[in-house]
Amino acid sequence: MDSEHAFSEAERAAIYKCIAERRDVRSEFLSDPIPQAKLAKILMAAHQAPSVGLSQPWNFIIVRDAALHAKIHAGYVKASEEAAIKFQGERSETYRSLKLEGIREAPIGVCITCDRTRGGEVVLGRTHQADMDLYSTVCAVQNFWLAARAEGIGVGWMSIINPQELKNILSIPEHIVPIAYLCVGYVSSFYKSPELEQRGWAKRHTLSSHVSINHWNNETALDGLFAFL
Amino acid sequence: MDSEHAFSEAERAAIYKCIAERRDVRSEFLSDPIPQAKLAKILMAAHQAPSVGLSQPWNFIIVRDAALHAKIHAGYVKASEEAAIKFQGERSETYRSLKLEGIREAPIGVCITCDRTRGGEVVLGRTHQADMDLYSTVCAVQNFWLAARAEGIGVGWMSIINPQELKNILSIPEHIVPIAYLCVGYVSSFYKSPELEQRGWAKRHTLSSHVSINHWNNETALDGLFAFL
Repeated sequence: MDSEHAFSEAERAAIYKCIAERRDVRSEFLSDPIPQAKLAKILMAAHQAPSVGLSQPWNFIIVRDAALHAKIHAGYVKASEEAAIKFQGERSETYRSLKLEGIREAPIGVCITCDRTRGGEVVLGRTHQADMDLYSTVCAVQNFWLAARAEGIGVGWMSIINPQELKNILSIPEHIVPIAYLCVGYVSSFYKSPELEQRGWAKRHTLSSHVSINHWNNETALDGLFAFL
Repeated sequence: MDSEHAFSEAERAAIYKCIAERRDVRSEFLSDPIPQAKLAKILMAAHQAPSVGLSQPWNFIIVRDAALHAKIHAGYVKASEEAAIKFQGERSETYRSLKLEGIREAPIGVCITCDRTRGGEVVLGRTHQADMDLYSTVCAVQNFWLAARAEGIGVGWMSIINPQELKNILSIPEHIVPIAYLCVGYVSSFYKSPELEQRGWAKRHTLSSHVSINHWNNETALDGLFAFL
């Protein structure tokens, strides 16, 4: 029996489909511009994220200047080389063979930041968990990602850059934290499963290996939970 | 013109509706149990979140023991009093008048944690942004929240507790970070807009005040972006 507040079966199917088919895109970006109306809708979805104490700590910088893309790409190249040498042997070779960003191919970047001073000195819900503002901002990132996927627009979260360098390039003040730099654009295709899985970098785990009841790692009471999947 | 990879108009409408109608629930929980099949579907949605280097750092502890709910509630009461005295004058009174959790009323809690060692010593994408594992886990939280909303199930993110106390209660090991404690259950109703707004605690900002082009706080080139909203 469904709750009267449940969405219709078709609506629920759309939401599960969007969550399942969202991908981190690196190589399939098309240069086609994103219509303003679409971008505004996706940004509004991000802006409707939950935020601690309704503090709405996020900002969105839409990076469409190719000269800035080139600077960010240069920051990526440097950071990626620093990362590559941390992997051992074959793993390092594989790392170097992966394309991990679409900074210059995607028509825009969207930098989503967190203002750690937003909402004043005391924010409801942050006293004992000070990073709740960062987490609120990540919820905005995930909303952005899902709305974009529904529009057929790919998103790649590019985390391989020194955050201070990103801040310098985008004139981001000291007290603002850049949470995500997203490469955003239409795509030729979406992978059917995570690209890192398809390329043999990592495997997806079973859900049941991540769930316990009442206490950490207590799997004695999982009973019928996973019979349905 | 839409991308061939875009969802249908009805599917997109469902996704935007879900994002817009998701609420942080504190007072409207019903005691009705959540069917295992529903909970499993919602957990699978969370498990399909993006994760840095496909590290899947999250775990889900389903807290259904009333004695644990009581302990967590006691931790909330203590933390909430510590928080209340940080607000000044009238604001402190208002804080005390708000119901900020549904720990004992919701039939289950779901603690979503982040294992900071998952994926080994070097994780692709974490070298320059070490907190990407925490952010991946928050993406799982947001997926959980949206899937639950579609099912007519309310979620309240309860961050007013000392994290170490929560770890002790749920036997969470030292290297694991509890990111979110969610109160989860069917509800009598969902607020039409954020409860903190309806109760006069804070206001929602306009989206346009959060957006700039190419650089922080550069609003000179916003042109037609918001004409559509």
